[in-house]
Amino acid sequence: MAEISRLAESFQQTDYPVGGHDKKSVQVLKRALEAIDGSVESDIYGTGSLIEDFQAKIAKYLGKESAVFFPSGTMAQQIALRIWCDQKGLKRVAYHPLSHLEIHEADGIKELHGIETVLLADSDRLIRLEDVLQVQGDFACLLLELPQREIGGQLPEYAELEAISAYCREKGIKLHLDGARLFEILPYYQKSAAEVCALFDSVYVSFYKGIGGIAGAILAGTAEFTQESKVWKSRYGGNLISLYPYLLTADYYFDQRVHKMEQYYADAKELAAYYNRCQGVATRPTTPVSNMFHVHIDAPKAVVEPLLVSIYEATGIGFTPYLRATSETTCYYEVSVGDRYAAIPKAKLQAAFQLLDEYLSASKSQQTHP
Amino acid sequence: MAEISRLAESFQQTDYPVGGHDKKSVQVLKRALEAIDGSVESDIYGTGSLIEDFQAKIAKYLGKESAVFFPSGTMAQQIALRIWCDQKGLKRVAYHPLSHLEIHEADGIKELHGIETVLLADSDRLIRLEDVLQVQGDFACLLLELPQREIGGQLPEYAELEAISAYCREKGIKLHLDGARLFEILPYYQKSAAEVCALFDSVYVSFYKGIGGIAGAILAGTAEFTQESKVWKSRYGGNLISLYPYLLTADYYFDQRVHKMEQYYADAKELAAYYNRCQGVATRPTTPVSNMFHVHIDAPKAVVEPLLVSIYEATGIGFTPYLRATSETTCYYEVSVGDRYAAIPKAKLQAAFQLLDEYLSASKSQQTHP
Repeated sequence: MAEISRLAESFQQTDYPVGGHDKKSVQVLKRALEAIDGSVESDIYGTGSLIEDFQAKIAKYLGKESAVFFPSGTMAQQIALRIWCDQKGLKRVAYHPLSHLEIHEADGIKELHGIETVLLADSDRLIRLEDVLQVQGDFACLLLELPQREIGGQLPEYAELEAISAYCREKGIKLHLDGARLFEILPYYQKSAAEVCALFDSVYVSFYKGIGGIAGAILAGTAEFTQESKVWKSRYGGNLISLYPYLLTADYYFDQRVHKMEQYYADAKELAAYYNRCQGVATRPTTPVSNMFHVHIDAPKAVVEPLLVSIYEATGIGFTPYLRATSETTCYYEVSVGDRYAAIPKAKLQAAFQLLDEYLSASKSQQTHP
Repeated sequence: MAEISRLAESFQQTDYPVGGHDKKSVQVLKRALEAIDGSVESDIYGTGSLIEDFQAKIAKYLGKESAVFFPSGTMAQQIALRIWCDQKGLKRVAYHPLSHLEIHEADGIKELHGIETVLLADSDRLIRLEDVLQVQGDFACLLLELPQREIGGQLPEYAELEAISAYCREKGIKLHLDGARLFEILPYYQKSAAEVCALFDSVYVSFYKGIGGIAGAILAGTAEFTQESKVWKSRYGGNLISLYPYLLTADYYFDQRVHKMEQYYADAKELAAYYNRCQGVATRPTTPVSNMFHVHIDAPKAVVEPLLVSIYEATGIGFTPYLRATSETTCYYEVSVGDRYAAIPKAKLQAAFQLLDEYLSASKSQQTHP
């Protein structure tokens, strides 16, 4: 097993981890199954009411004609891009430099499909219409990730999104939504999922981020598009004989949580404000536009780690299980607000933030006056 | 939903379906989970003791250095072949014309990897050493499926297998085992899994055939090979955040059933003998070499279907939920023996076979003397 860090170990022992819904344990599956009768028939190779009903339910929610359940978003999105490339007869797509496809999939899109990728915008900001306009040469598909996770979960203004969509339609460029966190951004946009998805030709959504299922994804679009995606799903070995453990949990937690995104968003804004009042801490974005943000700390990882451990031990509040160095003198981590946040006693949370502010101020003062 | 046939409907209502372990329902998952404490931590992207311990356990059982759990065998096997092709710098592999890769994967191996496939032997018989010797030009890997499912689950003599293995080693051709039903053939060969696997460079085994889990596969080989397979697993979108529903059930039913393969094999031989005593019925192979065989009936599908329904209704015995036409005048189906067989009252089973023999004799007599 991978060695567990002192910080992660300490985090695991806190009474009040700040992010997420639950500990990632088998209980997540057991709870969902309690409500299910054992005689419910398995889905079989993508057929059966268990999978077909869920696909129809999510297609309707997304305002799309058809939807297909996939074991993973990685598989679903590569397939979406491949279908659009084949349709245009051009293996070239565009996305953000920090897209999941570019940094978390071991170059699957290139190695399995030979698709050329055009990286839009800089890695520290969102894609804008002008970035799309400036691409040299044609391309089959533009993938937009809403929110852009690796820069803290930022969102373009809705009007910019509409302008990009209109431009792509005009130019015959397919627009694909990486909606891994689509449910989470609807309160900010004040739009329905169907309204947002109407701007896109194909849409992927995930069931284990804000929804808190175990794994699994939906790919949605026209019936023709999803039919083609099923062929690729077979090619990938994604058409498992049964996907019901993921289907059942996706469906269960979707019903439990999709209406709570407004609360998570409000909680994230409150939590970010606590962070931003601390010395040397800045959230990105400053005011969250979903349930997520990044916490950037103006101090070295090696300095911050023991401070966090002290805070966890003193207060029982757990901010994060890890830190990533962004430079020799700075570090960051990601926060996603879920069910847990509401259960934290405010006084304890405030005490933890007070300690964080004090420790970082003292650390700063030591650095500047050694 | 797909329309359910009259035969399938009638089969579902029988008290004694002859093949398999259980009805494919959520109960399969619930039963395995009863033994698991909810606090057991999820596997996370291929790490954690839940997945690592199971991989180590199966690696040891197979006598291989290392093993990786995959959501599906389709994914695992394409990846194995790709790795061997890359290692040799030659995208050419050989397998049986009725290999799973050739007929059940929508040409994934070709569409995703551009691998050329050489089809060995004829589609109605096993691959022999002489077929391998006759291939024109070099190739990177030979895939052997043991038993060859689509021809009823046939097996080469062990000496032939050893000769093929020795030849491949001599020629620098990697030998891959499609061991979807490896556990099931060990009683016939009177070998351990490790002994059989020692003839192969890489091995895939499945956990939802004789083992009766929900889905999932293991790919095993050297540590270097499995490390490379993990990269491809990420590329395919197979490195799910959590695979534990499949892992837990694979492990649970492996322990429940891997030692019962001898019984299933004996039962299959008994069952095949019942079939072979019926007019116009022949099993393939005549004497099974595992828990599986095919039942070939010398009568048209449309004639046999209502006869089977009558037998199911009269006796409560269910032979098969489907028939496949092999010609205008013949049909067949597959049988895999599992836990259910032992629970069937022998008198009822014999009564059902007596009816089958009578009905088919009468049907034959009508055909020949109309």
